[in-house]
Amino acid sequence: MPRYRLLIEYDGGAFVGWQRQANGRSVQQVLEAAAAALDGGRPVTVFAAGRTDAGVHALGQAAHLDLDRDLPDDRLRDALNHHARAHPVTVRAAARVGEEFHARFSAVGRAYLYRILDRPAPPALDAGRVWWVPGGLDAEAMDVAARVLIGRHDFTTFRAAQCQAKSPVKTLDLLRVTRHGEEIRVIAEARSFLHHQVRNIVGSLRLVGRGKWTAADLAAALAARDRAAGGPTAPPQGLYLTRVDYP
Amino acid sequence: MPRYRLLIEYDGGAFVGWQRQANGRSVQQVLEAAAAALDGGRPVTVFAAGRTDAGVHALGQAAHLDLDRDLPDDRLRDALNHHARAHPVTVRAAARVGEEFHARFSAVGRAYLYRILDRPAPPALDAGRVWWVPGGLDAEAMDVAARVLIGRHDFTTFRAAQCQAKSPVKTLDLLRVTRHGEEIRVIAEARSFLHHQVRNIVGSLRLVGRGKWTAADLAAALAARDRAAGGPTAPPQGLYLTRVDYP
Repeated sequence: MPRYRLLIEYDGGAFVGWQRQANGRSVQQVLEAAAAALDGGRPVTVFAAGRTDAGVHALGQAAHLDLDRDLPDDRLRDALNHHARAHPVTVRAAARVGEEFHARFSAVGRAYLYRILDRPAPPALDAGRVWWVPGGLDAEAMDVAARVLIGRHDFTTFRAAQCQAKSPVKTLDLLRVTRHGEEIRVIAEARSFLHHQVRNIVGSLRLVGRGKWTAADLAAALAARDRAAGGPTAPPQGLYLTRVDYP
Repeated sequence: MPRYRLLIEYDGGAFVGWQRQANGRSVQQVLEAAAAALDGGRPVTVFAAGRTDAGVHALGQAAHLDLDRDLPDDRLRDALNHHARAHPVTVRAAARVGEEFHARFSAVGRAYLYRILDRPAPPALDAGRVWWVPGGLDAEAMDVAARVLIGRHDFTTFRAAQCQAKSPVKTLDLLRVTRHGEEIRVIAEARSFLHHQVRNIVGSLRLVGRGKWTAADLAAALAARDRAAGGPTAPPQGLYLTRVDYP
């Protein structure tokens, strides 16, 4: 059966998350229904690189699926988009890949963007797309502090209780905080992340931006290896899975 | 009565347009209800610089209103946002102004942005925020052709039938087309615009981008002074009122 890799964008606010769940519509469910519709109704499983939570967006989620049919890449992309058109999910690209390709296990890197809106007025156009933090954050202090998290560490402090990873040790390759007018953007890159790792890091960086924590406080929180030592979890709507890398 | 100027952002997709109408919720109605709620229930009229159509967004709409109360600027902004919080409209700033200030008649410039998404996949995150034009547009050809419209002209070709302006002669100060990855942005600036002028211009520029029209065809359409000589009207959801200028 031919295997295809997909590049996917979605508005996480419309879904219970990537993964199929009993309590609502998931991105996986919409794409699997679209794939089944063009594969003669045969059930199709779509495997993603990362199972984003409810409310988390994707600009560049990666996934793969196997079909009975041999379809040109662009026709598959257009057919999936046709069947998924009632929902805010879109296949940006489809490409035939070898059977050894697995969206999750072949991935060698993931990149996330977290958007914070730092202004007194709540968002109108970006409602559900940013974390609104009125009151003024020091983005430069956040960026300087972020450096203590870069590298290989035990990230237990920034790990969700329900995280299923075997080890809390991860290597954070990039963590940068930059201001763009009223918006503060946090970008994070690693081979893989723990559950809620980016949102928990952003929640702690906000304490630095507010002047409540220093870079040393952030380093101490990391060293504590205790979720209770970390800041609160930032809400899902500011988070975007922007890229998944393959060899 | 103290007069205040407002800087307003909204998601046009949630409204029948700026102006109060019998058939649905308008931005004006939401802001007037918010203002009345904080002014003891007294009816308040909010005057905008430009009455945007249904679906058209604003990042920097300007308006003014008179209140019985003397309020600090930031408190007025926050109180209006509190009362309007159920709707995707936000007051970015409020400022006390003199009685001679009128959001519409004092304005000396307006700036619009039109966003086109030029890629095979439909928008997911930007659904309702861009005009999706799959198939490849030549943004550079559009930008070159756009120059024939800059300056003082009779814009009858790009004027809606229901336009109430006294004269079809307007001076277009700026019209630029630039590509940013999959997105093409058209920016237009003038003292004032005719009804649908930007959308009608964008609809014609798209014909240039597709290679169906040359710059000379666009010049001929302008010279015809006939709406029937122009291209189709671009849809509202790509249009943003970005700025209103005052002396």
